[in-house]
Amino acid sequence: MTERNETPTAPQGETQAFLQRAILAGQGREPADLVLKNLRVFNVFDGSLEAADVAILGDRIVGVGEGYAGAEELDGAGRVAVPGFIDTHLHVESSLVTPFEFDRCVLPHGVTTAICDPHEIANVLGVEGLRYFLDASLRTLMDLRINLSSCVPATAFETAGACLEIDDLLPLRDHPKVIGLAEFMNFPGVLGCDPKVLDKLAAFQDGHIDGHAPLLGGRGLNGYLAAGIRTDHEATTVEEAREKLSRGMHILIREGSVSKDLEALAPLLTPDVSAFVALCTDDRNPLDIAEEGHLDSMIRRLIAKGIRPLDVYRAASWSAANAFGLKDRGLIAPGRRADIVLLDDFMDCRVAEVISGGRVVSDDLFAAREPLAPVGLNSVHADPVTPSSFDVPATNAPARVIGVVPGRIITEDLSATLPVREGLAGIDVERDFLKVAVVERHKRTGHVGKGFVSGFGLKEGAIASSVGHDSHNICVVGADEVAMAAAVNRVIALKGGFVVTRGEKVLSELALPLAGLMSLQPFEEVRHRLEDLRAAAVSLGCVLPEPFLQVAFLPLPVIPHLKITDFGLFDVNQFQLVGT
Amino acid sequence: MTERNETPTAPQGETQAFLQRAILAGQGREPADLVLKNLRVFNVFDGSLEAADVAILGDRIVGVGEGYAGAEELDGAGRVAVPGFIDTHLHVESSLVTPFEFDRCVLPHGVTTAICDPHEIANVLGVEGLRYFLDASLRTLMDLRINLSSCVPATAFETAGACLEIDDLLPLRDHPKVIGLAEFMNFPGVLGCDPKVLDKLAAFQDGHIDGHAPLLGGRGLNGYLAAGIRTDHEATTVEEAREKLSRGMHILIREGSVSKDLEALAPLLTPDVSAFVALCTDDRNPLDIAEEGHLDSMIRRLIAKGIRPLDVYRAASWSAANAFGLKDRGLIAPGRRADIVLLDDFMDCRVAEVISGGRVVSDDLFAAREPLAPVGLNSVHADPVTPSSFDVPATNAPARVIGVVPGRIITEDLSATLPVREGLAGIDVERDFLKVAVVERHKRTGHVGKGFVSGFGLKEGAIASSVGHDSHNICVVGADEVAMAAAVNRVIALKGGFVVTRGEKVLSELALPLAGLMSLQPFEEVRHRLEDLRAAAVSLGCVLPEPFLQVAFLPLPVIPHLKITDFGLFDVNQFQLVGT
Repeated sequence: MTERNETPTAPQGETQAFLQRAILAGQGREPADLVLKNLRVFNVFDGSLEAADVAILGDRIVGVGEGYAGAEELDGAGRVAVPGFIDTHLHVESSLVTPFEFDRCVLPHGVTTAICDPHEIANVLGVEGLRYFLDASLRTLMDLRINLSSCVPATAFETAGACLEIDDLLPLRDHPKVIGLAEFMNFPGVLGCDPKVLDKLAAFQDGHIDGHAPLLGGRGLNGYLAAGIRTDHEATTVEEAREKLSRGMHILIREGSVSKDLEALAPLLTPDVSAFVALCTDDRNPLDIAEEGHLDSMIRRLIAKGIRPLDVYRAASWSAANAFGLKDRGLIAPGRRADIVLLDDFMDCRVAEVISGGRVVSDDLFAAREPLAPVGLNSVHADPVTPSSFDVPATNAPARVIGVVPGRIITEDLSATLPVREGLAGIDVERDFLKVAVVERHKRTGHVGKGFVSGFGLKEGAIASSVGHDSHNICVVGADEVAMAAAVNRVIALKGGFVVTRGEKVLSELALPLAGLMSLQPFEEVRHRLEDLRAAAVSLGCVLPEPFLQVAFLPLPVIPHLKITDFGLFDVNQFQLVGT
Repeated sequence: MTERNETPTAPQGETQAFLQRAILAGQGREPADLVLKNLRVFNVFDGSLEAADVAILGDRIVGVGEGYAGAEELDGAGRVAVPGFIDTHLHVESSLVTPFEFDRCVLPHGVTTAICDPHEIANVLGVEGLRYFLDASLRTLMDLRINLSSCVPATAFETAGACLEIDDLLPLRDHPKVIGLAEFMNFPGVLGCDPKVLDKLAAFQDGHIDGHAPLLGGRGLNGYLAAGIRTDHEATTVEEAREKLSRGMHILIREGSVSKDLEALAPLLTPDVSAFVALCTDDRNPLDIAEEGHLDSMIRRLIAKGIRPLDVYRAASWSAANAFGLKDRGLIAPGRRADIVLLDDFMDCRVAEVISGGRVVSDDLFAAREPLAPVGLNSVHADPVTPSSFDVPATNAPARVIGVVPGRIITEDLSATLPVREGLAGIDVERDFLKVAVVERHKRTGHVGKGFVSGFGLKEGAIASSVGHDSHNICVVGADEVAMAAAVNRVIALKGGFVVTRGEKVLSELALPLAGLMSLQPFEEVRHRLEDLRAAAVSLGCVLPEPFLQVAFLPLPVIPHLKITDFGLFDVNQFQLVGT
């Protein structure tokens, strides 16, 4: 212990200068930059609620206690303050807006840190797409963190826009916003020791490797974890989640627009394991965000189901930060990042104010973000199609038909005898056997994969989308080939988007010019367009509540049972192509 | 997802090769290096006990489950397996043996990771001492981790052997065994923004900064934490610990040979906070290790006090690893470091076998460690003293006397009227006013700080030690100056050690030639010597159970109330020297 030094002398470096101000402000010997007054601070370590102010300097909390003074002061009016929420796994592209609009849309829901996987844009633009997200992450108000997409393309049975190998990822590994490697979907490649997979796993042993292992258990799970993978968001039952927990995996409870696991996994969130459980949304569209909310809605529903608020808020903050090595956040305490949510209602998680990195979130702050030019505005490389592009020669055998399951991305493998006209297998609207096609749009190969689908219920017209997981070719479903061609050609003309046609007439559309995945419009406008598109689909007889999500997942050849790519029908169980 | 690859081809790098073997062994497709058969594996995530084998490859667990086969197999005989224990803060020097002997002594108690602060040797040898520990840490069986000593010397009111500034610490910061900065004792320097302190704090913002803030609370604690400090082992009451927890500090419950907080802090260890609480020993001597144990004894006593085994074992493993950023260990799961303790008795924590980094701990393994030459074998630089070296001129005022408190390092500030002979203040054995002196031994300055002490109860003879916190000059307590001189001169001749004398005769001694702090003998021998030294002290009338620990802390000028350095008596409350 040296002699007490009450008259600090000027330190050298910038960090020293900041630390000096932080230490003095924490002691109340100098004013803080911002003081949140008159709060009830919720502690996710011990569950206590404490009447206190929170003193902030720069992006750091420096004091919790009563009587702090600051250059700026905000009256908390007795509100409960909880740590900013952390979404541990999501794809911004699924919100159909840019990272900037995602920021403006989701941060007000209390999500101060979002760990995203730019998987969709990476499949279209490759490294250029990753760099776009990294550049955006340096400009958003929320702390947008990136896990680098680990499995691009998803398979070799389709034409992808890009391929990411270790040499593409290595230069990005040490970017300040990169946490590690995103959901390692290719678990067969891990278990089979695919050399390219081993290269990626080896390069990120010291970072974080996020998992993606639906239904994997027993020795397969052991082998997967032996590779150094630590987190998983694919558990869909408590039993699966408990086995993964028992093997040291941190479980991320997911509630997206497509995959919804909150109801099933809520019982997992007990006091004993809440330090090892976090929350994520994976894929959530702007309609759901507007109507239900984001992580705030998950917190609300978990508490309503009787889970202790301590366990729910801990999972949404500290446990999430800790699982991904973000040691500087996750609770309201001196020395931690000033990510704070002020609530009007603690049990119902009603967000009143959000402080992100020490700044009180406002429209002005969003407006003041350093702009970033969009990329991939010309990513649709395909020539116009004609109705005959979708011709399917008739055979004697019954046709295999993709059976859509409402609200799920898994499909059924059906078969049907279809009407034959002029040697071609035809659509049977009465029995709901419609045509589905995937039109390649990255390399102008002219590939058109064709087949039949059941479950949409269209009586006329067509629905087309340039969002088609994971390679994002153009997927179209229709009751007649004329409408299908018109829909696909309009998507091409828009350079990406959602389109609904009746005959040659476009009933509704949403342009998604950024890589064919994201709109350049405000999220409010995108929401209204989606409502209009849904109405248009219903006017054609569509019986699915989320027609574009269902279309977008028809090409995903890693989800059972029968899917379609630009190469043709794909039997996921046999893992091979099965026809046109 | 690529095509399944059941016939792995050879990967390129070493890491890839290891990962391939780990993934295959985890799946049971290839034999592991070592399989622990027939265990009940305790899970510190959920508290479950699972009948399973544990498959290990290299230093990594690759599988947990039944039916694994390995090149080597160990029958666990149904024993309970728990994760290796982690001591989060200790000074190896306090065990009076080398790091190698500490390893051999403590690892069999289940301590597979020890986070040490080479604070004592750093005060004597500076960077050379730190490098000695870093070199040792690359050779021990246990994973010895280093936090770099942050506050050397402790004060400016004594002659220290070394001074560590930022330029000394920076070159060591990125050593693979360095975690960060050790207990930041100089909290007045932090709160006062001492520039040299700010330099150290700034340099380690991205690493871990361990705290040391006895009784610090309120705004002082806020300011201290605003500097980025995250852990503390100095809380001595539940109230103090709870305030620190509420401010985001991870609490390390300490039970050493001197400072004992387990009884007071046991109630802190509840299910809600066990993820944020860890254990440490700080200073523990080989007698206590032999008679009580190490962390195993803490676990035993905590469970006996009614704390849930899940919370106790979690604190001893995962919570400790997590608090210090050791993400690769702390539970028995695939992908984690193979640090495992097999117990004969789970509730009573009786250790049967220890696996450290995948190796079954044995005498042969200890014998096979790569040898390391001791350093600082000539660290005692002082000329012989004479009885008159301890003369204290008489004054009219009553003399200030250090009052020893048995079993505590805090002292009382007493005063007494002492007998005068030939103008000198004299010892009064009847009233137990003995003489105490600190003889400088680093720079041959000839400094001898002199004073009086009460509480030892010696009727004759003297006790001398080259261990004297924190500067480790030679401290001697005696009933007559002849014995004091003989004891000090023998310590000098031994180049460091403990000595008990009657008159000029040495009754017992322990040589501590390594920096004057550590023996070169096996820990068993050191233990016997300590018993002999205690007996010798008792034969002189000593009433203190730990005479050498009490002597060693008399010079520590940062602990209230009255202490002594080679500069003379030191009033800790006034923080100034007060006489001879």
